[in-house]
Amino acid sequence: MTELNEFSVRSRGRNEWIDVTGDVRRAVADSGIKEGICVVFVPHTTAAVTLNENADPDVGRDVNLQLSAISPDRPEFRHSEGNSDAHVKTSLVGPSVTLIVSGGDLLLGTWQAVWFTEFDGPRTRKILVRVLGE
Amino acid sequence: MTELNEFSVRSRGRNEWIDVTGDVRRAVADSGIKEGICVVFVPHTTAAVTLNENADPDVGRDVNLQLSAISPDRPEFRHSEGNSDAHVKTSLVGPSVTLIVSGGDLLLGTWQAVWFTEFDGPRTRKILVRVLGE
Amino acid sequence: MTELNEFSVRSRGRNEWIDVTGDVRRAVADSGIKEGICVVFVPHTTAAVTLNENADPDVGRDVNLQLSAISPDRPEFRHSEGNSDAHVKTSLVGPSVTLIVSGGDLLLGTWQAVWFTEFDGPRTRKILVRVLGE
Repeated sequence: MTELNEFSVRSRGRNEWIDVTGDVRRAVADSGIKEGICVVFVPHTTAAVTLNENADPDVGRDVNLQLSAISPDRPEFRHSEGNSDAHVKTSLVGPSVTLIVSGGDLLLGTWQAVWFTEFDGPRTRKILVRVLGE
Repeated sequence: MTELNEFSVRSRGRNEWIDVTGDVRRAVADSGIKEGICVVFVPHTTAAVTLNENADPDVGRDVNLQLSAISPDRPEFRHSEGNSDAHVKTSLVGPSVTLIVSGGDLLLGTWQAVWFTEFDGPRTRKILVRVLGE
Repeated sequence: MTELNEFSVRSRGRNEWIDVTGDVRRAVADSGIKEGICVVFVPHTTAAVTLNENADPDVGRDVNLQLSAISPDRPEFRHSEGNSDAHVKTSLVGPSVTLIVSGGDLLLGTWQAVWFTEFDGPRTRKILVRVLGE
């Protein structure tokens, strides 16, 4: 069995972490699949998706701070849109996460949330969720 | 067909690479699945999983050294647990790898091993393995 | 249903991005699978695979430039082959991407391409494609 779902998020800053765990959970529940996997896929090249802590909002803030230190805007960049720093972050964090589905729900660790990570906002973005299993 | 497996590892240092290839191979063999995929998932937010060389232990040591250069502890961090450097590394390396299963075994390159990467040890950690296929 | 495919690429520089979207698309079409996922897997430890922009070749050039700034060759490295910088990049970018298959084709964003990223070329490299679904 397999099911494909889609939802949108709206970022408000250039760099922003948005918790989409609830949306992904709903897609898994809607699929009716009990045991399998769930692929969360971002069809953009200046945004990504990651898992990280959900309890303290300072974690996302700190990770974002360091990502901007790792991938600053540089005068050497040639890409004319001027957002190469965002393209670098996308390849570092990655465009998808593959999660485990069990008992009809996501199997996440106690502190894990699914974060959409905007690197070139504000924009309206699309997120795809593919659930596969039985 | 799909099967879910779980095992534990015990890290001894703050930053440590532990080779879990054998444990993942056993989970694939136990599943009885011959052709498909295998998702290795770390349900923690200060540890990750990656593939890298298995022959020379200096590779893991060198990668760890550079990860700490890329993501140092910084006075600007606000997360009160004081381990934001580990949360950054987790989002850079990633919480899961998706492997190919063929002939009832992992299909890895000659030099590839599956490494659990601890960034905030020592701790006892859980690793989940989902095998999916036929 | 599941299908496994393989193809080769030949890199010409030490660091190089090669667009393999067409090869991956062919593997999906050949599989006959209409709805599911596609895992693109690099069985090497000094090369990786990522999604990023396909329109302006300067994006790959800029990302590569920054990856080399993030992971330079360092005198502190001990791995005797002298390519630890490439092993670091491999764990940062990652050995696989998991894509969504729908309507018998890859479901990619408008600007997304699948890039094989060489970090220790020139070499002939293998890429595996596992398609799973129905």
